[in-house]
Amino acid sequence: MSNEELMLAAIDAAIENVHKGGGPFGAVIAKGGEIISVGVNRVTPNNDPTAHAEVCAIRTACLKLGTFNLSGCEIFTSCEPCPMCLGAIYWARLDKIYYGCNKIDAAVAGFDDSFIYKEFELEKAHRSKKMVELLPVDAMRAFDVWRKNETRVEY
Amino acid sequence: MSNEELMLAAIDAAIENVHKGGGPFGAVIAKGGEIISVGVNRVTPNNDPTAHAEVCAIRTACLKLGTFNLSGCEIFTSCEPCPMCLGAIYWARLDKIYYGCNKIDAAVAGFDDSFIYKEFELEKAHRSKKMVELLPVDAMRAFDVWRKNETRVEY
Repeated sequence: MSNEELMLAAIDAAIENVHKGGGPFGAVIAKGGEIISVGVNRVTPNNDPTAHAEVCAIRTACLKLGTFNLSGCEIFTSCEPCPMCLGAIYWARLDKIYYGCNKIDAAVAGFDDSFIYKEFELEKAHRSKKMVELLPVDAMRAFDVWRKNETRVEY
Repeated sequence: MSNEELMLAAIDAAIENVHKGGGPFGAVIAKGGEIISVGVNRVTPNNDPTAHAEVCAIRTACLKLGTFNLSGCEIFTSCEPCPMCLGAIYWARLDKIYYGCNKIDAAVAGFDDSFIYKEFELEKAHRSKKMVELLPVDAMRAFDVWRKNETRVEY
């Protein structure tokens, strides 16, 4: 399939999802022009705020390919990824992102992506979500145990 | 439970998880000092790059409380959230974030959080992950269908 056909598949998934009670977002993960997975926004029907289209597509693709590393794959998403999904795309090592609408379009449609992007640009102390450091020395113990564990799987 | 006890529960979960083949990260979601859920990093054993401690704790808390909105709850995480998890925390509407180690500690332990935070600070065109706009006019159809759907659940 061409890049345009893959994007249209993501858009069609988004539209179909609205009719099924989900949000207006769809994403396709492809490798060499073949669809590996399709994800849609199921936040409200599934009571899962992390169930954005891109995250769902990544989870399904990883399950299907039996790996946590999707390098060699690309993602086609009907809307520019929010910070959560962009982070997920980095962790999944996807090669490239194709997006349809942008975060401004999403804001006009009533979704908070732009607000969250703006929060990310602020220093911790100036964000609306308060972040407090607590027991940092104790917390380092987890990394100590990790470094000493010779069977650890790094990624 | 006190805030310190809740953080120690997150740290203990992180350490126990290393012994069970996962990453050195744990998170607890609490409401009024009571633990609602515990999450740990299961990226490599579950082949799920989105299975960070905070995301897992959010999904479990939402399932348990039957909602996609965790306002009134706080999260205690053994390490400062990565961009994916910070985004998830905003979407979940958690009130406040307590964190143990920070993103610099995570980088020293071999985790890419700092790199991803730096990428977020760059304009799209300067990021290492290429982002390409494709069919934006077609993609707007999903939002049109959404706006016309009178049974939509906004969030």
